[in-house]
Amino acid sequence: MHKLPVGVLGASGYAGRELCALIAAHPQLSLRFASANERRGETASFGGKSLTFVAPEDAPLGEAALVFTALPHGASAAWVGRASVAGARVVDLSSDLRPGSAAVPGHQPAPYGMPELSRDLLAAAPVVSNPGCYPTAILLALAPLVRAGLVPEGATISVAASSGVTGAGSSPRPELLFAEVAEDFRAYAPGNTHRHLAEMRAVLAGLGAPSVDLIFTPHLLPVARGILATITVPVTSIPADPMGPWRDAYDGEPFIELVDEPPTLRSVTRRNVVRIAAMPVKHVKSPTMLVYAAIDNLVKGAAGQALQNANLMLDLPETLGLPA
Amino acid sequence: MHKLPVGVLGASGYAGRELCALIAAHPQLSLRFASANERRGETASFGGKSLTFVAPEDAPLGEAALVFTALPHGASAAWVGRASVAGARVVDLSSDLRPGSAAVPGHQPAPYGMPELSRDLLAAAPVVSNPGCYPTAILLALAPLVRAGLVPEGATISVAASSGVTGAGSSPRPELLFAEVAEDFRAYAPGNTHRHLAEMRAVLAGLGAPSVDLIFTPHLLPVARGILATITVPVTSIPADPMGPWRDAYDGEPFIELVDEPPTLRSVTRRNVVRIAAMPVKHVKSPTMLVYAAIDNLVKGAAGQALQNANLMLDLPETLGLPA
Amino acid sequence: MHKLPVGVLGASGYAGRELCALIAAHPQLSLRFASANERRGETASFGGKSLTFVAPEDAPLGEAALVFTALPHGASAAWVGRASVAGARVVDLSSDLRPGSAAVPGHQPAPYGMPELSRDLLAAAPVVSNPGCYPTAILLALAPLVRAGLVPEGATISVAASSGVTGAGSSPRPELLFAEVAEDFRAYAPGNTHRHLAEMRAVLAGLGAPSVDLIFTPHLLPVARGILATITVPVTSIPADPMGPWRDAYDGEPFIELVDEPPTLRSVTRRNVVRIAAMPVKHVKSPTMLVYAAIDNLVKGAAGQALQNANLMLDLPETLGLPA
Amino acid sequence: MHKLPVGVLGASGYAGRELCALIAAHPQLSLRFASANERRGETASFGGKSLTFVAPEDAPLGEAALVFTALPHGASAAWVGRASVAGARVVDLSSDLRPGSAAVPGHQPAPYGMPELSRDLLAAAPVVSNPGCYPTAILLALAPLVRAGLVPEGATISVAASSGVTGAGSSPRPELLFAEVAEDFRAYAPGNTHRHLAEMRAVLAGLGAPSVDLIFTPHLLPVARGILATITVPVTSIPADPMGPWRDAYDGEPFIELVDEPPTLRSVTRRNVVRIAAMPVKHVKSPTMLVYAAIDNLVKGAAGQALQNANLMLDLPETLGLPA
Repeated sequence: MHKLPVGVLGASGYAGRELCALIAAHPQLSLRFASANERRGETASFGGKSLTFVAPEDAPLGEAALVFTALPHGASAAWVGRASVAGARVVDLSSDLRPGSAAVPGHQPAPYGMPELSRDLLAAAPVVSNPGCYPTAILLALAPLVRAGLVPEGATISVAASSGVTGAGSSPRPELLFAEVAEDFRAYAPGNTHRHLAEMRAVLAGLGAPSVDLIFTPHLLPVARGILATITVPVTSIPADPMGPWRDAYDGEPFIELVDEPPTLRSVTRRNVVRIAAMPVKHVKSPTMLVYAAIDNLVKGAAGQALQNANLMLDLPETLGLPA
Repeated sequence: MHKLPVGVLGASGYAGRELCALIAAHPQLSLRFASANERRGETASFGGKSLTFVAPEDAPLGEAALVFTALPHGASAAWVGRASVAGARVVDLSSDLRPGSAAVPGHQPAPYGMPELSRDLLAAAPVVSNPGCYPTAILLALAPLVRAGLVPEGATISVAASSGVTGAGSSPRPELLFAEVAEDFRAYAPGNTHRHLAEMRAVLAGLGAPSVDLIFTPHLLPVARGILATITVPVTSIPADPMGPWRDAYDGEPFIELVDEPPTLRSVTRRNVVRIAAMPVKHVKSPTMLVYAAIDNLVKGAAGQALQNANLMLDLPETLGLPA
Repeated sequence: MHKLPVGVLGASGYAGRELCALIAAHPQLSLRFASANERRGETASFGGKSLTFVAPEDAPLGEAALVFTALPHGASAAWVGRASVAGARVVDLSSDLRPGSAAVPGHQPAPYGMPELSRDLLAAAPVVSNPGCYPTAILLALAPLVRAGLVPEGATISVAASSGVTGAGSSPRPELLFAEVAEDFRAYAPGNTHRHLAEMRAVLAGLGAPSVDLIFTPHLLPVARGILATITVPVTSIPADPMGPWRDAYDGEPFIELVDEPPTLRSVTRRNVVRIAAMPVKHVKSPTMLVYAAIDNLVKGAAGQALQNANLMLDLPETLGLPA
Repeated sequence: MHKLPVGVLGASGYAGRELCALIAAHPQLSLRFASANERRGETASFGGKSLTFVAPEDAPLGEAALVFTALPHGASAAWVGRASVAGARVVDLSSDLRPGSAAVPGHQPAPYGMPELSRDLLAAAPVVSNPGCYPTAILLALAPLVRAGLVPEGATISVAASSGVTGAGSSPRPELLFAEVAEDFRAYAPGNTHRHLAEMRAVLAGLGAPSVDLIFTPHLLPVARGILATITVPVTSIPADPMGPWRDAYDGEPFIELVDEPPTLRSVTRRNVVRIAAMPVKHVKSPTMLVYAAIDNLVKGAAGQALQNANLMLDLPETLGLPA
């Protein structure tokens, strides 16, 4: 059977490698090229198939039906342009074209590739901007409450989220050495300064909550992969069926799993799903809900969602080649 | 030199073992007995000194100047009584006599053994109730703000805290096996139901914040020891010197470390300190602060603080024998 | 398409669960039943398919084309008999019927299910005995040298092997708690006393090395899964092409990967392969080789190999449903 | 009381930092300077005492009674010379002056600082060469057997040893990132090529075993600290009391712990001890012993042993300031 050729720019990072492995196992896509500038000329194996990395300038962009760019923030937008000019559709995994991004003057945000929230915009889009890992977990957890009008004006939403170290990239930095990370745990981006904040605020505004205060504290976990977000949200009132808003919003969604207990990291790793639990907060006077969401930062938080978007853009079944 | 004899009831759990090791290294205390019912007759070594565990009924309570009870919640209060009758002072590491405890009808709460908040009550107390591990981190983080009157009436304080597995005890339970905990992370006590909540609410009320809504979500970390709490607190206004309230409250305290960046677990493990950082939350309309606090759950959160209390009760230097 | 019904006895341990997950993803098998005595009546999900555990006595053995037993050693043989009487083929993951086993008087060893060494015996066998995890790595590493006649009479082969904790089972034992295993490493079965020794000696004798002294020291790693064996073997002489014996023996084998550097655990986990590297020992007078072999103890070392055997017995492609 | 001033060259690596922390806690030493070229001007805290790193050229070598050099191999010898010229005694933690070292032409090996084997040579030595981490564990395990004449001529000794990642240094290398090391295990220096081999062969020759074949395979463990060595040794005959040779050789040694079961890493970490167990190998025809030895690579394997040597050189009690 004929497979559609796709390419990956920025294949040596954790997200890029995960993407190459998923493509290698995909029944209808073939990996036409993968660029990795510092490793160009090296051969890697994905799912038993060998591939030699090229420099991005040597990537035959025009031979791919779709190009994924997993290049660094700031460097990606220009390659989105080149791939588009060469005639390829593009899924951009960087933050360059995401809502709220100020990184790349002159570039318009592309449709936000979170199918559960905006599937209709994606099939025909020439370029799709793949969401950040934290925003994927947090926005999918919050969207049903916001859309149901249950979050009051001016509410303060407090998010504590923790990520495995692959979220920090594969560049060797002293603080990411095993001997530093093991047996440790730390908060970062202190005082609400994480670069994903603008992305989440912009999307929340689009969902109908322009006035909320969002406080987001990320933490670094001594695990390789996975994100767990614990979210405190004031509500106008507790729904009679507390998980009703999520059930309504995500009916039939293949990659949303609603559960009764806070999800564990292990229940989602190596899978393209988000697991969500929501419940009323006891022992408080103001009606408040706790929402818990877990994803694999490299799959639903990056490469898996990118492939989900690509399936939609290429008119393939949305779940094809994705570990459920 | 003459050393003061002390005893430990419940020496086989993680806190009990830590306590025995600290006592073995203490220059002015000697370990007269250690009870461990299921391991009675077994010999253990602490700091190079051998000791044979006894059943609690066989412990010579009257020969100890002070008895630590690290027995399970519910079982401890009765032994506090027996040790008192035998003439010993007592530090109770269980929750039985803590503020807010409803566990043991007929027992009055004992003075709360958190020297930084209530040192004056401890020196003469026959019995001191040693705080819980989470409350130690969280209350020491919050007290200066509350006492300074900066937390508004009815405010919602949101706490996400994470603990190493020694906090869950040493009983073999399937969910605590290495193969389950490694590469995992999970929230527990969902919906604000942790048993430490009553203790924290009672102490906060005593500090002058009876009306706040406290939302507390604990998480289980794949590390052996340590607690990190990330706390979001609405304030009436941001202090000109954001860390001023903590500097004022903890001036000269030997076991409080104020830092500029969120503290890491590694910076406090095996030490009897709490590290605290506090800063304003950016990008929000309502004035809010983020407070981060880290402790070792077995040291400042249990055995170390118990020894700190014992030092005060026995008129020894407060810092003696404690790893700083 | 019609799928062949199979059943699993002993589905709640780590190997049993891995087996159920592999069967759920297998294109030509369906899981007819899974027994888990202590969890009977509970529902579990494997690959998105729900299944209710039954007691072994309630398992409809006769409705399965093939039954896997992952029951404890000693208890398994009787169930092999019952399943056979009910008309099912059997793959026994216990040690009961393995070469060298003295566990079950009255039972004959069944053909040893290591296809790379004895494929011809398996297709028609009513019962196949699935190898132990350590023997899988070690025997596949040693067999080519032995069969080539390169191991001298009376040689001493020294094996240091290390396993992830899933190899120790899922029963909650204090020494397997996260807080005990993390940051630890230990040898066990001291002085050459591991129960897999008889299995390995018996197979080596069958391969033509009845006189060797085999010294085997297993270690417990702070990882969930994987086995790495480091093997020192005296040889009559170093082959001109040091890896020649392995290349010859394993030509075309789908699950053997020969590599130039010692294999890492990560390169084999979640895959049904064994990776082997072999090289001469430098700086010694007696010709000696170092052979390194790595497997996933739950896949090629247990459930994956069991499925590989089942594929052969059921006349399905040997690699079907197995992660390569 | 007057403390003796000492200095540390190369204080920013793991061994250097451990050394600074031990010196800070030592009752009779004070840390006069610590050099860390890339961090010069930065302030660090050791045991509550602040210190500003200097460049090595700016270290007041002449003001120290003793200088520890923890500089890289190859770079250290020259600084040993400078410190000596400045009038300081020196403990060199690098391999430059160790037995078997060919690294530094023109420099003579200094006495080998393993007090349990060569205490008499150390007190008066102007320079002592601190042993490597693996050699410390392995030579202390083997020496009693060799000295007792129990290892036959030409015997092959096979050593599988595993080390925590601090043994690989603190330079950020991709393969030492948490996401690479966690859940992994790997052999390195394949085929008997580790640089510690020459050191061990030279010392074994000096102990009376010039003809043995030593095969040494190191492995990288997913733990921060600790070394466990599992050693297979042919013997002329099994001693009537298998641990007799060790008991005789190490009678009264403060830092040797002889145990009945293979020692765990956890039993030695953060302590200046080596734990050794030895036992006959069962189920073999040739008399052979298994010897297990565990140390903390940063303490007895580096900084602790260096301080033990310094205590001897400075005529202080050998155990002073060392965690037992």
